Parts: sequence; C-alpha cells; structure tokens
Amino acid sequence: MALFVVKIGGNIIDNPDACARFLQKFAQLPSPKVLVHGGGKVATQTAAQLGIETQMVDGRRITDRAMLDVVTMVYGGLVNKNLVAQLQARNCNAIGLTGADGGIIRSVKRPVKDIDYGFVGDIEAVNQAQLEALLHSNLVPVVAPLTYSREGLLLNTNADTIASVLAVALAVRHSVNLLYCFEKKGVLSDPDDDEAVIPALTLHSYAEYKASGAIVKGMIPKLDNAFKALTDGVRRVTICHADDLEAAAAGQAGTTLSLA
Amino acid sequence: MALFVVKIGGNIIDNPDACARFLQKFAQLPSPKVLVHGGGKVATQTAAQLGIETQMVDGRRITDRAMLDVVTMVYGGLVNKNLVAQLQARNCNAIGLTGADGGIIRSVKRPVKDIDYGFVGDIEAVNQAQLEALLHSNLVPVVAPLTYSREGLLLNTNADTIASVLAVALAVRHSVNLLYCFEKKGVLSDPDDDEAVIPALTLHSYAEYKASGAIVKGMIPKLDNAFKALTDGVRRVTICHADDLEAAAAGQAGTTLSLA
Repeated sequence: MALFVVKIGGNIIDNPDACARFLQKFAQLPSPKVLVHGGGKVATQTAAQLGIETQMVDGRRITDRAMLDVVTMVYGGLVNKNLVAQLQARNCNAIGLTGADGGIIRSVKRPVKDIDYGFVGDIEAVNQAQLEALLHSNLVPVVAPLTYSREGLLLNTNADTIASVLAVALAVRHSVNLLYCFEKKGVLSDPDDDEAVIPALTLHSYAEYKASGAIVKGMIPKLDNAFKALTDGVRRVTICHADDLEAAAAGQAGTTLSLA
Repeated sequence: MALFVVKIGGNIIDNPDACARFLQKFAQLPSPKVLVHGGGKVATQTAAQLGIETQMVDGRRITDRAMLDVVTMVYGGLVNKNLVAQLQARNCNAIGLTGADGGIIRSVKRPVKDIDYGFVGDIEAVNQAQLEALLHSNLVPVVAPLTYSREGLLLNTNADTIASVLAVALAVRHSVNLLYCFEKKGVLSDPDDDEAVIPALTLHSYAEYKASGAIVKGMIPKLDNAFKALTDGVRRVTICHADDLEAAAAGQAGTTLSLA
C-alpha cells in the first residue's frame, strides 16, 4: 500500500502563513502518511531568551543539558502540539510523537570523538510494529526530532535522518514516497538561482554536482539521507518546495532522486 | 475489564526523587492504565525566566497568549516527554498525549464572564474510541493538561478535570479505578495534621467537613471532580500519597470516596 513520509523544514515552520498553506496540503494527501518536522529558529530564540547560548558545529546543534530541555520544550511541545492541533482542525487525525512515545525510535547518545555533541542521539532501532498499529488506527503520526535511549534519556536527533529511517522502516510493508519539503523548489544546480532546479538526480550526477561545487554544504547531509533511503527500499524520494507538495507527491515538481 | 486512571500532582513532578519513585510504582501497575499529569512549578519558573508574569485567580492560571506557549512547551513538551522516556526505560509502553493528539479531548475556550481566563478550555468531548484503540495497542497514555478546540487552538485545561473526564469516558467499557496521587496521605480532617487521613468519605461526610471548614479550599475542586466521576460511572475513586500508589490501588491507603 502507498504511504507518504513528509519532512517539513524549520524555515517553513517559522513562517505561520507558509506553514498553514503546507498543513492544508498535507491534510489533503491520502493516508496513510507521516509528518516529520524540524525545529526552526524558535529553539534558538527561546534558548537566547532563557540566557542559553546556542553552539553549532557543521550545522548541527551542540546539545548540553539546558539546551536539551529547550529543544524538548520547543520541538516536542510548542512546535509539535501546534502542528497537531492545526491538523486536527483540518480533519487530519494527527498524533504528535517523539521517538520515546510508543518507543518508536530508540537511539544511543553519540559517542564523543573529536566533538562532544552532548545529548544527541544516533538511531539504533525503529519500532515498526508500533508505527503500523498507529497507522492502522487511522492516526497520522507527527514526529518531532527527538529520540530516547534505553536509560530513559531524551536525545536531540536530526529530523532529516528521522524521516529517512522511518521511511525505510515503513517500506517493509508499504510502497513509500518520501518527500523533503523546504523553502526551495528542489535541489539547485546553482545555489544563487532559485529557478535552477535539477528535476532528476542520480547517484552519479549527485557525485558530479558535488565535485563541481554546485551542490552546497547544507544539502549534502540531506541528500545522503535521501539516497540512503532509496538504497534501503524506499520507492521514491523527492525534494521540493513546501508549496509544491501536491505536485511533488504526483512526481510533477521538485527534484526526484534515483539510484541509477 | 479493570483499568486504572492515575493523576499525579505537580508537587511530585517537581521533585525528581519522588517522581522517579512514583514512576517505578506506576510502571508496575497492571495495564490497561492511563497517567494524567499536572504541570508543577516549572511552567511558572520558565515563564518568569522568559519575563512573563504568572497571574492566578482561585488557584487557576490566567493563560494569555505568551503563557499558553509556555504551558504548551512545559506541560506538552518538557514534563510529558520526560515522563514518557522514563516510563519507557521502565518497560512501560508510554505514549505522551495532549487532548489534541488523536483528537482525544476537545474543548471550547472558556467564555468570559467576571474573569477572562484566557486560553483555557472547558471540555466538550472525549474521543473514547480513539483512546480504546490506543489501549488496545498496549500503549499507556500519558496525558498533559492541554486540550484543543475545533478551530485548532491549544487550550490550558485543569489536570484533575482531565483525569475525571477520561475516567468517566473509559468507564463505558471498563471497571475504572481513579487515583489522585499527590504529596499528602489523603484527604485530611485537619489541614495542619498530615496524619489525620479520612479513610472513607461520602457525599454526606464531605458536606459536613466542608461546612466545618476542615476540608480546605484547594481540595474542594479536586473532590468535586472526584465525586462527579463516581456519579458518572467510575467504580472507585481514591486520593492518596504518590508513594502509596500500590496500596491505594488495592484499596488499602488514602481516602476512598463513595456516594453513600
């Protein structure tokens, strides 16, 4: 059975109008479906208001104890529950989850090598049966970028990775269409030209674009996650603008990835 | 089938050791079961750190827009998700919910009469079928004191009331044992003597204790909710210390209420 896993980026979450447009389109996608959301700037802003400094290394947040509490509040509470309430008002039976809820995504605290990322989780296991049971109850999981450890710690976890891992787990029983929605129309061949969308990207052309420097740093972890999902059984992966969700779900917008 | 609905008060949530002891006991109660939690002082503290003033009228928080965001972060995020992760680590398959999740508790924004309570919800409907479906999937709902409106607003809602309303909804199909756990050993006949526990309270003796002033203000809304639950089909209601959960679940601690 076909199933959509949709990741929505933080820049859309941060913009109430763009977010409302996106939620309207997401609510209209056929079920079963799963939404994974990033955090946006609210966590950084809230941390700043609380006098906590945000440290980033290579685009990833360093999560000390105080910052873990902030992301738990903002991602798991403020952002997640507002998305759920807005989807419910659009007749979409959303249920907000972190990885801890129903034990759906367990992780281990990232080992310290060169950098101590703090309370950051590397995913260890997805509880596919529990996810299927929720979908079977006609629920639409809305997943925040938090996981948990065997010891009962919450851990900050990259949302792109969560989307990829959930898509792979659900691909065991479904034909999964994974869509990464953000504020650009797709993967761009020129980072300064928003219209220069690459309609189809293979592993081979991805390597070429990386070598030429056309695909820039921020996109690389996202695309690595996306190709990993394809390798692991996801049927289609598309990177698109949040406003283009409907067309992209039909394969008519954004950048569609393929292995060859 | 027997089912426990357990409310845990904010003063226990605020104390990490007391909370851990309680969670260990809750994890060991037989399923199906539901946990409802209050917020504790963390919301007030977080609001203060963010420069938001907390206004209380008759023990109820006035929830303006900024305070709604704080309670959504603290109750729906920080408190709820930490309880869930700690229960998962104790092999209890917890799932954290607000009323918005799965549309389980819908409310209306309280009409303004003498006092404008702000974003506070009066409960309108409980989605019993959705709750039963979650319990049927062997999940243990952990419910934060937030509900949602048809318009997609989150609304602050009293946790004692949520516990009572959920217990009543589940009493349609279960023999429900509702336990209010807090930092006292039960309802006291003398508010200054923590050992003066009233073992059994009827509607009649409740009226007498109220008339004599022995039962003090803070207990009255809790007891009104509790007696309402009994009237509406809940089998047993007990008010007890969080440390006494196991004994109280067996009818051997705390104050047990009965209609006559």
